[in-house]
Amino acid sequence: MTTGQFLSDNAAAVHPKVWEAMRAADVADAPYDGDALSQALDERFSDLFERDCAALWVATGTAANCLALATLCQPHGGVVCHREAHIEMDEAGAPGFYLHGAKLMLADGEGAKIDPQAIRAAIDPIRDDVHQVQPHAISITQASEYGRCYRPAEIAAIAELARERGLGLHMDGARFGNAVAFLGCAPGEAAGPVDALSFGCVKNGAMSAEAIVFFDPAAADLARYRRKRAGHLQSKGRFLAAQILAMLEEDLWLDNARAANAAAQEIASSCGERLMHPVEANELFVRCTPEERDALRAQGFGFYDWGANAARFVTAWNSDPDAASALAGAIAAL
Amino acid sequence: MTTGQFLSDNAAAVHPKVWEAMRAADVADAPYDGDALSQALDERFSDLFERDCAALWVATGTAANCLALATLCQPHGGVVCHREAHIEMDEAGAPGFYLHGAKLMLADGEGAKIDPQAIRAAIDPIRDDVHQVQPHAISITQASEYGRCYRPAEIAAIAELARERGLGLHMDGARFGNAVAFLGCAPGEAAGPVDALSFGCVKNGAMSAEAIVFFDPAAADLARYRRKRAGHLQSKGRFLAAQILAMLEEDLWLDNARAANAAAQEIASSCGERLMHPVEANELFVRCTPEERDALRAQGFGFYDWGANAARFVTAWNSDPDAASALAGAIAAL
Amino acid sequence: MTTGQFLSDNAAAVHPKVWEAMRAADVADAPYDGDALSQALDERFSDLFERDCAALWVATGTAANCLALATLCQPHGGVVCHREAHIEMDEAGAPGFYLHGAKLMLADGEGAKIDPQAIRAAIDPIRDDVHQVQPHAISITQASEYGRCYRPAEIAAIAELARERGLGLHMDGARFGNAVAFLGCAPGEAAGPVDALSFGCVKNGAMSAEAIVFFDPAAADLARYRRKRAGHLQSKGRFLAAQILAMLEEDLWLDNARAANAAAQEIASSCGERLMHPVEANELFVRCTPEERDALRAQGFGFYDWGANAARFVTAWNSDPDAASALAGAIAAL
Amino acid sequence: MTTGQFLSDNAAAVHPKVWEAMRAADVADAPYDGDALSQALDERFSDLFERDCAALWVATGTAANCLALATLCQPHGGVVCHREAHIEMDEAGAPGFYLHGAKLMLADGEGAKIDPQAIRAAIDPIRDDVHQVQPHAISITQASEYGRCYRPAEIAAIAELARERGLGLHMDGARFGNAVAFLGCAPGEAAGPVDALSFGCVKNGAMSAEAIVFFDPAAADLARYRRKRAGHLQSKGRFLAAQILAMLEEDLWLDNARAANAAAQEIASSCGERLMHPVEANELFVRCTPEERDALRAQGFGFYDWGANAARFVTAWNSDPDAASALAGAIAAL
Repeated sequence: MTTGQFLSDNAAAVHPKVWEAMRAADVADAPYDGDALSQALDERFSDLFERDCAALWVATGTAANCLALATLCQPHGGVVCHREAHIEMDEAGAPGFYLHGAKLMLADGEGAKIDPQAIRAAIDPIRDDVHQVQPHAISITQASEYGRCYRPAEIAAIAELARERGLGLHMDGARFGNAVAFLGCAPGEAAGPVDALSFGCVKNGAMSAEAIVFFDPAAADLARYRRKRAGHLQSKGRFLAAQILAMLEEDLWLDNARAANAAAQEIASSCGERLMHPVEANELFVRCTPEERDALRAQGFGFYDWGANAARFVTAWNSDPDAASALAGAIAAL
Repeated sequence: MTTGQFLSDNAAAVHPKVWEAMRAADVADAPYDGDALSQALDERFSDLFERDCAALWVATGTAANCLALATLCQPHGGVVCHREAHIEMDEAGAPGFYLHGAKLMLADGEGAKIDPQAIRAAIDPIRDDVHQVQPHAISITQASEYGRCYRPAEIAAIAELARERGLGLHMDGARFGNAVAFLGCAPGEAAGPVDALSFGCVKNGAMSAEAIVFFDPAAADLARYRRKRAGHLQSKGRFLAAQILAMLEEDLWLDNARAANAAAQEIASSCGERLMHPVEANELFVRCTPEERDALRAQGFGFYDWGANAARFVTAWNSDPDAASALAGAIAAL
Repeated sequence: MTTGQFLSDNAAAVHPKVWEAMRAADVADAPYDGDALSQALDERFSDLFERDCAALWVATGTAANCLALATLCQPHGGVVCHREAHIEMDEAGAPGFYLHGAKLMLADGEGAKIDPQAIRAAIDPIRDDVHQVQPHAISITQASEYGRCYRPAEIAAIAELARERGLGLHMDGARFGNAVAFLGCAPGEAAGPVDALSFGCVKNGAMSAEAIVFFDPAAADLARYRRKRAGHLQSKGRFLAAQILAMLEEDLWLDNARAANAAAQEIASSCGERLMHPVEANELFVRCTPEERDALRAQGFGFYDWGANAARFVTAWNSDPDAASALAGAIAAL
Repeated sequence: MTTGQFLSDNAAAVHPKVWEAMRAADVADAPYDGDALSQALDERFSDLFERDCAALWVATGTAANCLALATLCQPHGGVVCHREAHIEMDEAGAPGFYLHGAKLMLADGEGAKIDPQAIRAAIDPIRDDVHQVQPHAISITQASEYGRCYRPAEIAAIAELARERGLGLHMDGARFGNAVAFLGCAPGEAAGPVDALSFGCVKNGAMSAEAIVFFDPAAADLARYRRKRAGHLQSKGRFLAAQILAMLEEDLWLDNARAANAAAQEIASSCGERLMHPVEANELFVRCTPEERDALRAQGFGFYDWGANAARFVTAWNSDPDAASALAGAIAAL
């Protein structure tokens, strides 16, 4: 593995401040989430989002997404999401497990984003009878699987539809920091009026902690039982809380996301027409031939193929700016 | 929290060598379990148990137990366990979740241990028809919830019954190290011919990693899918592998367990008739009145009440020998 | 099979009036439960119970019990029932399936009945934390698995406890008619303030229809989705509705139950000290040696062994009074 | 409701011979499936399909499909089916319930039929890793949701692919009789080498009985437990067995299907270009404007709208030939 690694942000190094916070947490305290750090999460997130919320740590984004959705969708219901959403494509059927057989209802949309029209197209044909699974919730991803960000007005429009139809609204924020860094708005605006948010840390400098932020305390209470039942209540939970608190401290989460976004912009600057999607967060989808990919790899750059004629590059909080510049140059030189 | 803390081993500090190994793992490597450390687990455990096995990391004992059991029991079956087994009493119904509604079948036994007679008493009355849930597996705990250890011959007898009846056999080894330290036998003898073992590390000096050891490779393959589906496949899995490898390195797991057991023996030495169960691992169940408990707490000792007239003390790898002696003295002085 | 058959009421003949009603239903009508007969159930049961209710047909008591319970208990909760309740002993784990892994919490009690004290003994030891499954509902059986009937005051006391603890209350009324016939009270009094009642018909003269009576319309709406999802929404549902309506017509259900109870009393009259339980419905549990059982079988009487030294006799709506007298005589002559 | 009813075959009258058989079954016999009629099913279906099979009755096609699929697909797997398959569109998420969260994988194809190419298009993009749900089985519908029949060679090709990929193969035969009547081949040829077949009776003259035919006895044994667990094991099962046996007796099932198909052909004869799909079974999808639909309804014909500009007509075993002719005339006159 080299400095030219742009495979993913999901296995990047752990930020020194996260390490520090974890070491500092290695003192005797109550087990599970009874420790002082875990107990501090609600207030810390309420400050961040400027409204009351309750926050639970879990180890993975899949667990965060599914525990959140399980509070919004009953086993006989459905969750509307984009056809390429992580919960549909990359979680091994975890929503079916956590939601006890509920169905994902796939909507289309540019850049892996959905809008009210796409949601209606997915659910309006559903007959309102017991023979068809009825929608119970909507899940959107901020930033999306193609690195696109929902603007506050776009979220508001989806939330309005959700309210009209009596649907819960969840946001998969595995890269929420990258979205806020791009949008330049308050975190509360980037989340909008969702019911629950998976607030990602692992891709942004943490080791093994994500937060589920519930804006409805009753949902959080429910999720606490389900978290334990899913084997996700760690007895040394203080080390997860410590990671999350370290991310929030002095906006480390935003600084990290900004660094990743900046590296992505540096690379994007040389991609021109090759870009399949505007670069708004830390992912780039770049048209290039197999031969061009070979050429880049020969120069030490790591990335995933994206279909037959494209490549996916992901930057991380610790992407080396020189490596990003080098990649930009290499792409320009193709 | 004071040095007199004997509440539990589940939130104890992390061993320095585990920290070291985690720090050393903070290098770029493949995500999930594709990294070099995760890939080393199978061989390392095969060496330890002197037979081929496949090992997966997960974050909690509940996840380890349930993912293991899910390979041994179908949704319509049952798992025989002691009435006070952790899977029955303290996992929030996780077996019901992971096994899709399978049933725990409760057996009795001194010291939270079961034997073939108790197992037969639980399953022989089950009519062999489709109206009653049929047993598919047995789960035993080494050391048991009361700190008792199964002798190799006892496990062999249970395994023999399991074979006769076509049942899978799982061992919850949340405190397996304490059992091996007590028994003084090879790890493979302390595990016996089980199909899957939850090899505990968190209570023994690790932070957030347990191993599931499968002695049947097909079961491990199945568990890999189920682990991801349960949201337990961490992208920076190298940090879990690092913890487990550190525990195995130069028998740290055994040294830690021996230290905890020694502290327990020190306390036990003064308990005499007060002991409800022989002390074989790192837990003591001690008869004492509420007034006596108050007196101990007034001296700074932490522990859980165990019913109306007893207390549970648990030692850990880092229990202060002086504190153990002090507690022994305080109990003697009651 | 002979007229001396007292094996069970569950496979007895279908009452002529039920046949008539089914034949009369063989006219074109809407599918599923859109037909006139299905639509008439709510009103008919509201009349019977003298309060608003919504009633759904299903084919079996197991489906009725489980669909009812699924409206009262979440997947992470528990249902308190007697240790020998049908849902625990004879439904193949169906509650675990329908309730997505929820747990049955077993209580003790004479005659397979439970009372507030027994329920408290089962649930009071449960710690109010996320590590233990919390009770969500209670299920009682009227008449019980040993043919004992809950008096209205007994149900009220259980309902009061349920209210205090925020638990739902379900009644398995597979032999509800036998209970009402014995109690001589209004059906509403024999049901008490339960949330949902499985109103049995199959054991009482119907062929393949049970009613689930919901006293909360929202629960009925939920159950409609779950019924379809469980494959229990028959397209020719009018034939199930017809059976139930026929049972209710001119109190056929009560007449049938009275006939079964009378036959049971006839047999009971000769059993004296042999009776293990007072006979209140249509089941008799009679102490007798294996030799005595052989002797009875040699005379053509059919029944199940009940352990080593007892027999279970069940009468049905169509039990031949002469056969009942003959059995009574045979028992007296043992 | 008039003789002009072409809404569906799912609520049609019960055939007189089915009634006769049910009445004849009203004799004392063993409960559940221990009676002589239920016990006769295996042999009867083995004769029909000219190979060993085991057959279970259930009340609905949804239960039949899902119990069959549950033997072929694990909870973490997927079932490939057509995008408009009944299991996807009209079973309220029952596969998610019975298969414990498994996923339906949607394939495209003319006339709601799929072929190896379509199946490959659905599953080839699935990465062979634990992050994506892996296919475990394929389900096809004979005749399809658009009344199209799979030719034996088409089934053989799908079965070959299934074998190559290690996938189970299920056939939803809700209208299997109509397919056999159309194909004019042996039942075994119309089923092909599937692992399990839902053999429909309800739409073809029965009241409440479908058969699940397993060509692998181990799967049948598994399904027996799951049937009970799903509340589908009726205690008076002899009445379901009687219906199925009556359907098989002297090929009533084929005669009924032929009658329905003939009525469909009569109507089709006047539809010409209006037909959206060739008519091979007993369903017609006919292009017509809302005004034309109004005109037909004004003449007393019943049917469902099919989108904005079409109508679905379904004939049944008891469709009145005169009504079919009248409808044909009315369509011709539009």
